[in-house]
Amino acid sequence: MATFQTVKGFRDFDPEACARRNFIFDTWRRVARRYGFVEYEVPVLESTDLFRKKSGDEITSQLFCFKDKADRELSMRPEVTPSLARLAAARQRDYKKPLKWFQIGSCFRYEEPQEGRTREFIQFNADILGDTSPGTDAELIALAIDTMIEFGVSAEDFAIRLSNREIWNTFLTDHNIPAEQTGTFLQIIDKIERAKPEETAKKLEAIGLSLGTVRAFMDSANADHPAFADLRANLTARGLWQHVRIDATIVRGLAYYTGTVFEVFDLKHGLRAIAGGGRYDKLCALMSDGKADMPAAGFAMGDVVLGILLDKTPGAQFKLTSAVQDALSIDATLVIADEAQRPHALAALQTLRARDLRIDYAFAPAKVGKQFQAAEDRKARYAIVFGAEYPQITLKDLVARTQEEIPAHSLADTLTQRLAQPPTGPLIA
Amino acid sequence: MATFQTVKGFRDFDPEACARRNFIFDTWRRVARRYGFVEYEVPVLESTDLFRKKSGDEITSQLFCFKDKADRELSMRPEVTPSLARLAAARQRDYKKPLKWFQIGSCFRYEEPQEGRTREFIQFNADILGDTSPGTDAELIALAIDTMIEFGVSAEDFAIRLSNREIWNTFLTDHNIPAEQTGTFLQIIDKIERAKPEETAKKLEAIGLSLGTVRAFMDSANADHPAFADLRANLTARGLWQHVRIDATIVRGLAYYTGTVFEVFDLKHGLRAIAGGGRYDKLCALMSDGKADMPAAGFAMGDVVLGILLDKTPGAQFKLTSAVQDALSIDATLVIADEAQRPHALAALQTLRARDLRIDYAFAPAKVGKQFQAAEDRKARYAIVFGAEYPQITLKDLVARTQEEIPAHSLADTLTQRLAQPPTGPLIA
Repeated sequence: MATFQTVKGFRDFDPEACARRNFIFDTWRRVARRYGFVEYEVPVLESTDLFRKKSGDEITSQLFCFKDKADRELSMRPEVTPSLARLAAARQRDYKKPLKWFQIGSCFRYEEPQEGRTREFIQFNADILGDTSPGTDAELIALAIDTMIEFGVSAEDFAIRLSNREIWNTFLTDHNIPAEQTGTFLQIIDKIERAKPEETAKKLEAIGLSLGTVRAFMDSANADHPAFADLRANLTARGLWQHVRIDATIVRGLAYYTGTVFEVFDLKHGLRAIAGGGRYDKLCALMSDGKADMPAAGFAMGDVVLGILLDKTPGAQFKLTSAVQDALSIDATLVIADEAQRPHALAALQTLRARDLRIDYAFAPAKVGKQFQAAEDRKARYAIVFGAEYPQITLKDLVARTQEEIPAHSLADTLTQRLAQPPTGPLIA
Repeated sequence: MATFQTVKGFRDFDPEACARRNFIFDTWRRVARRYGFVEYEVPVLESTDLFRKKSGDEITSQLFCFKDKADRELSMRPEVTPSLARLAAARQRDYKKPLKWFQIGSCFRYEEPQEGRTREFIQFNADILGDTSPGTDAELIALAIDTMIEFGVSAEDFAIRLSNREIWNTFLTDHNIPAEQTGTFLQIIDKIERAKPEETAKKLEAIGLSLGTVRAFMDSANADHPAFADLRANLTARGLWQHVRIDATIVRGLAYYTGTVFEVFDLKHGLRAIAGGGRYDKLCALMSDGKADMPAAGFAMGDVVLGILLDKTPGAQFKLTSAVQDALSIDATLVIADEAQRPHALAALQTLRARDLRIDYAFAPAKVGKQFQAAEDRKARYAIVFGAEYPQITLKDLVARTQEEIPAHSLADTLTQRLAQPPTGPLIA
C-alpha cells in the first residue's frame, strides 16, 4: 500500500505552517475586536439546500456534497454567509442591531487546485447586519484596510477597488436600457477585463450599447459620483480614503450584491483578490423566506492569497517570521546534570510553568551536552542547570552566552525578570 | 419550505457560545505552550483508508464518509491521531525527537446524539512522539491535570484514572493464560463495569479464570505495581500524584494502546470521561507500513463533556463567565452629540483603535439617548461624547457613573490609563 497522502487540495499544517496560520488568525481577530466585532462560528457541514437556496443548483458542481447514512443531502460549506443568514434570521430578536459579527474557519470548494487556490481554505468573514447606512460600508472597508496594515502591508502594497451597483444603474437609466437587461449587462462588465474586446462589443451591441460608450463611462467613473459621497467623507475623516480606487469593473456576485462592492488587491504582484465583499440587503430575506428582512454588508478574506502576499512583502514577512519564531521557541530548558536533583528539577518545572513560562526538560537521564543541544534545538532562551551544587543552580542565557549562579528559591522570580528584557546577542559574535 | 436548521448533531456558536469555545481553546493552548508543545493541524477530510487502516472496516459505520466527484473515498475525520501518524511518519527526519505536538479542531462521528455526545465535537490532542521513557507518560498526565486546574477544576472535582497494560500482562502470566487470549480478556475487562456479573463470569470461565480472582486482583491493583514506579516518582516530584487513582478497569482502545492508559473523569457528576489517552508505540509503524517506527503517547480531550463540567463547577464557571463577558464587551462607544463633530469622532476612532482599544460608534446620526443605550447594550466601559464643546470632550465611566472633561488631544492617553484600572461600581448603587 502506498504511503498515505493528504486529499488533493487539502493541507497539513506542520508546526511552522500552523504558527503562520495562527499569526494570520491572531491578526484577523485582534483587528476585528478593535472594531467592536464579536466572533461566531457555524458548522462546516450544512444541508446542501442551504447553498442551493443562495446560489442555485449549479453550485453543487463546486461542492463537496454527499448523502449521509440517513439520506440527508449534506455539503461541506463553500462559504459562510448562507449559514450566517440562517443563524441571524433565526435569532434576530435576541440581538440588538446592528450585529457586528466575525468568523474564522475553513471552507471547501471542489475546484482544480492552482496558485492561490486550494480545495480547503480558511476565511475571515466580517459582516454587519441590520443597518443600511453608508457608515456600515465604511466600517467594513476600514476594517479591511486596517487588517492589511496590521499585517504589515502598506499603502504601496495594496489598495481597495471600490464600486457600487448604483453607478451602473444611473448609467443604464441615462442610456434608456430597460431594467430586465441589468443582469446581462453586469455579467458583461464582470468579464470585461478578461474577455476579448470584439466579443464584449458584440454582446453590448445586442443590448443597445457600444463598447466605446461603456469604456468612456468606466474611465470617467470616479469618487465624485453621489453613490460614494458618504463613504468618501467617512473614510477621509479616518485618514483611509488614500487606500481606495474607484473601479467600475468590480461587480462580484451578480444576484447577490445590492450596493457597495469592493475588493482588496495587491499593487505589485498581480495576485488574485485578497478579499471581497459588499452590501447584500436581500439575502437574509431570501434565506428565511421573508421571515427576517435584514439588510447586511460584509466581506471575506482568504488565507491563501494573503499568505502569498505576506511572503512577498518585506514588512509583513518580518512580522510573520517573528511570530513564527516566537511560537516555535520556549523560555527555558531544564538541564539535569546530576540525576539526584531530578525531583528538585521537576518541582521547579511545575513552579515555572505555573508562572506561564514555556519550559521543557529531558524525560529520561541524558548527558549534559545532549541536554544543552536539546535546549538549542528547541530554541530555548535559557538553560537552567540542576547539578551537585543544588540548591545553587546555574542560569545560562543561551542568546547572550552569559551565566549566573542563583539560589533555587529565587529561580522563578529571576527567570521572569530576565525574560521581561529583550534578548541580547553576544558582544563578540 | 421550512426554515433551515443545522444538520443533526451539529452546532451553531453564536457570539456567547463562541466566546465559551474560545475560552476553552485559549486555556488548552496556553497550558500546552507552557509544557513546550507546539501546535499543528491536519485536514478535516482524509481518505477513508486512513481510518480503516487504524481501526478496521467497521469504523465506516461511524464515519461521515462519501465518494467525491472523482470517486475518491473520503471521510470527515473521527479523530486526529491517524493523520498525526501520517504526517509525523512522512516528516520524521525533519524534526528532532521527541516531538511534543498539540492540535485543536473539530472531529465528526456518525453516532446518535445524546447528553455529552454530538456528531461534531472539538478535540484537544496532545502527543509526544519518538520517546519511550515513562517521563513522557508523566508529562502527558501532568499536562492533562494542569489543564483541568487552569480551567478552575480542582482536586475535589476531577481525578486521573490510571492503568497500564503491563499489570494485566503480569496477571495473565501469573495465571498461565496463553498470550492469544489477551485480546479477549481485555475486552471483558473493558466492559466489566457495565456488563452483568454473571455474563462476565461466564466469559472469564471460558478462558479459565474466575470473576472472583479477577475482582480480587483489580481491588489489589495499586500504585506499588512496578509498572507505575517511574510515573509515580515523577508525578510525586511535581506534586501531582494526589490527582491519580489506579484503576485496572481502564483499558481503552484494545489493539491500539501498548502501555500506560489513563482517563480524566469528574468526581461529582458521573459524566462520561473528559479526556483519555495512553501509550501507542506501534501505530506510526502500522500507518507507515513500517517505514517510521516511532513510539508515541498522547491524549485527547473533547469540548462537550468538558463544557458540561465547567458549568457545574463554580470555580470554573466564574473563569468561564468572566472570559465570556470580556469577549462580548468593548472599551468605549463614541457618542456623537453634535453631527458637526463626526469627522473629529472618526479621526479619534482611528487613533483609539490603533492603540488596540475596542471602540464602537453610531454609523448614522442618532439621538444622544439612543447612542448611550447602544453603549450600554454593547457593554462599553466608557462613553466618549463629541459635542459642541469640541475640542473638549466628555469621558463617561459607565460602570462608576462618573465623568470628566478632557481635551481631545489627550483622549487616547487618558482612556488607556483609565482602562488599565479595574472598573469600580457606583458608591451608591
